Amino acid sequence: MKKGLFISIEGLDGSGKSTQIQYMKRFMEDKGFEVLLTREPGGTVIGEKIRDIILDKQHQEMADTTEVLLYAASRAQHVQQFILPALQEGKVVLCDRFVDSSIAYQGGGRKLGCSLVKEINRFATQGLKPDLTIFFDISPVTSLQRISSKEIDRLEQEKIDFHEAVYNAYKELCREEPHRIKVVKADRDIEAISRDIQGLLIKLIKEGNL
Amino acid sequence: MKKGLFISIEGLDGSGKSTQIQYMKRFMEDKGFEVLLTREPGGTVIGEKIRDIILDKQHQEMADTTEVLLYAASRAQHVQQFILPALQEGKVVLCDRFVDSSIAYQGGGRKLGCSLVKEINRFATQGLKPDLTIFFDISPVTSLQRISSKEIDRLEQEKIDFHEAVYNAYKELCREEPHRIKVVKADRDIEAISRDIQGLLIKLIKEGNL
Repeated sequence: MKKGLFISIEGLDGSGKSTQIQYMKRFMEDKGFEVLLTREPGGTVIGEKIRDIILDKQHQEMADTTEVLLYAASRAQHVQQFILPALQEGKVVLCDRFVDSSIAYQGGGRKLGCSLVKEINRFATQGLKPDLTIFFDISPVTSLQRISSKEIDRLEQEKIDFHEAVYNAYKELCREEPHRIKVVKADRDIEAISRDIQGLLIKLIKEGNL
Repeated sequence: MKKGLFISIEGLDGSGKSTQIQYMKRFMEDKGFEVLLTREPGGTVIGEKIRDIILDKQHQEMADTTEVLLYAASRAQHVQQFILPALQEGKVVLCDRFVDSSIAYQGGGRKLGCSLVKEINRFATQGLKPDLTIFFDISPVTSLQRISSKEIDRLEQEKIDFHEAVYNAYKELCREEPHRIKVVKADRDIEAISRDIQGLLIKLIKEGNL
């Protein structure tokens, strides 16, 4: 049975992930793959309901521990109901944010400890890791400048020091798992970023003999 | 600063917890305590929204891992926003179900492993444990007989072997923590059960010099 490819896309808000994910989808489809685009938190009926609780601006009283567990719950459902079945059918799953987001935002940004957040997420994902993770690297300041003109949700209201802690946690993850996580400089024009990503995808396809 | 008392009530559905909790509340109020009654999952605005997701009969596709994490998320909010502040104010908190329910139902009943469920809940509760837990002991068969005439939610639809696994996990917890968890035979008349519980509460008050 042919196994699919699981690719996650990570980075600070405003790093241009959304645009590039669409390009990645078309690129992989042109290579003959069936591609599923999904996002976290969310991706399932239950997951989207959990997402609504997490991102509701009314929920200012939400405990950091609650937030970690809600993200993990949404992810557990996503893995079990959507990602694992798709991979078993040989599909390519492109996921906008996955475990690394929780480690960076909750473990790093909210200072809950990366190892605890990792452990809870190992339970949630049943140990599943992406075959490739692309980290869209922009500075925390660039991130905040880019998102400031858009409507901001509860998480995006956090201040610059939070974004710096998130960024540092991401960079630490890149150092820990250089084989899985590839860094793409995302403060360049769209075409340059897209070319780099296509190079990574071609390498992944070759390595996997797909 | 005077610390309050945290008492949890555990047992299979149909074990008569709801009736006795009301008696316990009145008994402790007569002793001069300010008593807060609460329940899990729920107990806060965010927690009740999580409760709705957990118990929605439409959600038949919910993964076991998701369920564990949603219970823990609801509990994390409950501890942080409701239980800890009340205890700091010296109140008595009577909680209908707490961590032991997750260990028994998810760890035991759904066979996810009690130690993993314990670990996730240690994170959720920030290590908080009840001063006293009363386990309402009825057999799984009695439990199912008693609840069969009521409208049943998604969890109560489970079969007898599930209830037996839950019961066995509860009994194991009673053996592990005999000082905290007190067993009350709950297949007797209401007055006899109530007398036993009052004895336990009087002992707790004396031990705590309250």
